[in-house]
Amino acid sequence: MLSKNRIKYINSLKIKKYRQLHQSFMVEGGKSVLELLDSDFSTEFVLVTQEFQQKYSSILTRHNVDIETVTIQELESLGSFQTNDSCLAVAKTKENVFLSPAESEYVLILDDVRDPGNLGTIIRVADWYGITKIVCSNDTTDIYNPKVIAASKGSFTRVNLFYTDLNIYLAEHSAGLGVIGAFLGGASLYDFKFPQKGGFIVMGNESNGIGDEVTGFVTDKITIPRVGDAESLNVGIATAVMLDNMRRQMAN
Amino acid sequence: MLSKNRIKYINSLKIKKYRQLHQSFMVEGGKSVLELLDSDFSTEFVLVTQEFQQKYSSILTRHNVDIETVTIQELESLGSFQTNDSCLAVAKTKENVFLSPAESEYVLILDDVRDPGNLGTIIRVADWYGITKIVCSNDTTDIYNPKVIAASKGSFTRVNLFYTDLNIYLAEHSAGLGVIGAFLGGASLYDFKFPQKGGFIVMGNESNGIGDEVTGFVTDKITIPRVGDAESLNVGIATAVMLDNMRRQMAN
Repeated sequence: MLSKNRIKYINSLKIKKYRQLHQSFMVEGGKSVLELLDSDFSTEFVLVTQEFQQKYSSILTRHNVDIETVTIQELESLGSFQTNDSCLAVAKTKENVFLSPAESEYVLILDDVRDPGNLGTIIRVADWYGITKIVCSNDTTDIYNPKVIAASKGSFTRVNLFYTDLNIYLAEHSAGLGVIGAFLGGASLYDFKFPQKGGFIVMGNESNGIGDEVTGFVTDKITIPRVGDAESLNVGIATAVMLDNMRRQMAN
Repeated sequence: MLSKNRIKYINSLKIKKYRQLHQSFMVEGGKSVLELLDSDFSTEFVLVTQEFQQKYSSILTRHNVDIETVTIQELESLGSFQTNDSCLAVAKTKENVFLSPAESEYVLILDDVRDPGNLGTIIRVADWYGITKIVCSNDTTDIYNPKVIAASKGSFTRVNLFYTDLNIYLAEHSAGLGVIGAFLGGASLYDFKFPQKGGFIVMGNESNGIGDEVTGFVTDKITIPRVGDAESLNVGIATAVMLDNMRRQMAN
């Protein structure tokens, strides 16, 4: 039976202020928790149903982690975003570590992406396309928001995010590199040649796109060509299409 | 002041059974309602806040539609999926009309896409890439689900969906055409040449992919090349990447 203190602690982690205070976050669902255990995150404890514990006992034992068996009802009452019928973990957050592109590497830059589902999707897409570094404006949604973690489907364990002032960051680190920004009304993505030396791919806010200050650093304004009539693409979709075109070119 | 009957009627449209009974569906949010009014859908009535009515009075008058002014609180109490602070419309559904590819056209096929957000995103993506016909298995989510309509961001007015038994449909209509299916473990999308004569692009269920029966009709099993470690891509993302590669080839 879950203690009141633990319930209170877990519920507090749905709020950014308490995640920062405790330097902890929650991970929900079997697949994500198993990926968490296999990662370099430090796990505080895992709540599991009896069924999940039996099914994955060898993995859970191997990780030597604090495990508490709970009922499905207890898990559901804690879940912040969906029916969670197998497990929930609490782990320590990582420090906000500086990131920059290595030679011939592309780093993704997010300027004020606000929707947690979008950020989670972008992390998953980045992981698919082998992007391991994302540099975010300070007003981009917190990676440790439970909805971001959920939408990333475990990819949060493999992709690193660095939150910073993008103006200062780009002023100091973009010299000599391509800063390729997704805009409506830019040059066609299909005609653009991604530099082999790597650099930055910049995606903007859901409503307002890339801000004026960051736009000042953009070397190439690129648009995904539209054939039909939709006004825009979701930022997660647009990120995938940008990265797909970059990887296709790099592969050839 | 909204009548009890109207409240009851609108709430009933959140349930598929009642949408089918009344042959009606609801559309929420200013942008989507304005696109609805500009489309060939028949609108029964529109609920608007006074502010929205004043801002768009010329458009609303031009469409000669039954308008009722309501409060934000009344709208929010009806909203099914999000804060809706401007308007809500009820319109008549369209009949399930047969669709097949014209010469050199690509039709999208969805085999059991279940998540309403994914279906709405796919409709929006199709609209961006100029795909106007989507053929869905009978167990694919209902297009008139309010969450589908919301996620499509108005694109439901421009993209037609036809629900049918895909096995019968493909047996009768796929002869001589490419049936290009998205699979994990197929041939590389980057090496694939989309036939200029058009055909079908098939996307499968979120968990299980394309079903065995539909797989039997697939002429080309295609995979989006992965560089990193994510297990899969969301079906909306994968649809966008497939269509982007198809359009890029067609443009060259």
